[in-house]
Amino acid sequence: MNKNTMEEYLEFAKKIAYEAGKIMLKYFNHNNGSSYKGDRTIVTLADTEINSYLIDKVKETYPSHAVDGEEEQEGKSEFVWVCDPVDGTAMYARHIPVAVFSLALVVSGVPLLGVIYDPFTDSLYSAIKGYGAYKNNEKISVNNYALDDIRSVCHCDMWSKAKYNVIQVFSELSKITYLNDIGSIARASCCVATGDYTLTIFTGTEHKNCDIAAVKVIVEEAGGKVTDLFGNEQRYDRSINGAIISNGIVHDEVVNIIKENIKSV
Amino acid sequence: MNKNTMEEYLEFAKKIAYEAGKIMLKYFNHNNGSSYKGDRTIVTLADTEINSYLIDKVKETYPSHAVDGEEEQEGKSEFVWVCDPVDGTAMYARHIPVAVFSLALVVSGVPLLGVIYDPFTDSLYSAIKGYGAYKNNEKISVNNYALDDIRSVCHCDMWSKAKYNVIQVFSELSKITYLNDIGSIARASCCVATGDYTLTIFTGTEHKNCDIAAVKVIVEEAGGKVTDLFGNEQRYDRSINGAIISNGIVHDEVVNIIKENIKSV
Repeated sequence: MNKNTMEEYLEFAKKIAYEAGKIMLKYFNHNNGSSYKGDRTIVTLADTEINSYLIDKVKETYPSHAVDGEEEQEGKSEFVWVCDPVDGTAMYARHIPVAVFSLALVVSGVPLLGVIYDPFTDSLYSAIKGYGAYKNNEKISVNNYALDDIRSVCHCDMWSKAKYNVIQVFSELSKITYLNDIGSIARASCCVATGDYTLTIFTGTEHKNCDIAAVKVIVEEAGGKVTDLFGNEQRYDRSINGAIISNGIVHDEVVNIIKENIKSV
Repeated sequence: MNKNTMEEYLEFAKKIAYEAGKIMLKYFNHNNGSSYKGDRTIVTLADTEINSYLIDKVKETYPSHAVDGEEEQEGKSEFVWVCDPVDGTAMYARHIPVAVFSLALVVSGVPLLGVIYDPFTDSLYSAIKGYGAYKNNEKISVNNYALDDIRSVCHCDMWSKAKYNVIQVFSELSKITYLNDIGSIARASCCVATGDYTLTIFTGTEHKNCDIAAVKVIVEEAGGKVTDLFGNEQRYDRSINGAIISNGIVHDEVVNIIKENIKSV
């Protein structure tokens, strides 16, 4: 696809992102209308309002494209806008400012552009495949730390209802690096893209492409690597097999630790 | 101590907290001057500047009182201002807005008042022993959820250099509740005070009274319970033996899980 077309798509995605941020802030301090879904995860008014806003905008601007939102889907196309309206809803609903809007344009399973917006620090992370990654228009890149570097921080998603149980992975990694779980995989992965984190691990599978599609292009354009939990490439227009998001340097070591310690539940 | 005197102390503490918040925000987006201490934890310009500001103000206003700050101490007295200038420094240094200022007045080992300020959401949590807990002057209280309630979120501090290894505790708890580690024990404990979280666990010991002194009075005035890792009361003018911070209801159950699964390193 030519660069002009991609830049037009990116401008569209950024406008949606800023609008989504406003919706997130609108409900943040007040009653955010939390309720629980079938898989015991939480959903708020912001999630559903943003998802439906995105569908309206895509229908209006790119009627031939499809939308695969975490809360609602629309249409069928090779071009899919894959979106997590609020990544980190569990934190957002509890008034912790660690939650982001995430949107990617996925073509034939490959994320060609991504934007992630953190309205709490007004940080917009973006990338077009082949053209580098940016935070508020400043170029960003991953760090070059080993896991046991004193500066390394890693995130491991501990959602216990996931298909994969990574408690043993967590245990092994915690012996060699500083590990936590800030409650939003997309927010933590932006830290990988800026070099603030070295690694994030995500255990989500069913319809969890929404959480990682934008991360895939942003982190790789920042010089990092994103694969499934076992080091393989995967499509982002359907369910995924978890994800490892790293600075690239530590990727193979982490794949090995996971292969040796993961349990399928 | 009479209520008027305590309210005067509280006003003093709140002023310091707002000033500390300004210093945190000043360095947040820029070079925050991170460096590493002997115990491999991180320190920023904000930590040292806030600690030294507190010492100046206490010397000026209450010259007979002492200061026990995480970065710097001053004087000796039965009245000690116990302070963590930036709790969650590892997050703060990585531009994640999960970090708070924490200050308590501890008299003969007992925290009589506490303030915790989150400058990112402009939330000031405060309490005077015997007079309730507040967030921005609105009364707050803990929730009444069991650990396996769908609404329960718990935080377990996973700092791997701590004296106690709680990975097995983490594993057991993750079977029954939603668990994460947002990187600031004081911020997460404020969520216990407001009912957003059900439980937080802290493994810190050596000079870690700074992290929990304000939490102790705020959470208990909100109706919760704060003890060491084994369910015992402890002093907050010296090193502590970790902490369990809960809504009260789940406290004994958590003490039992910890006793069965903790390892002293």
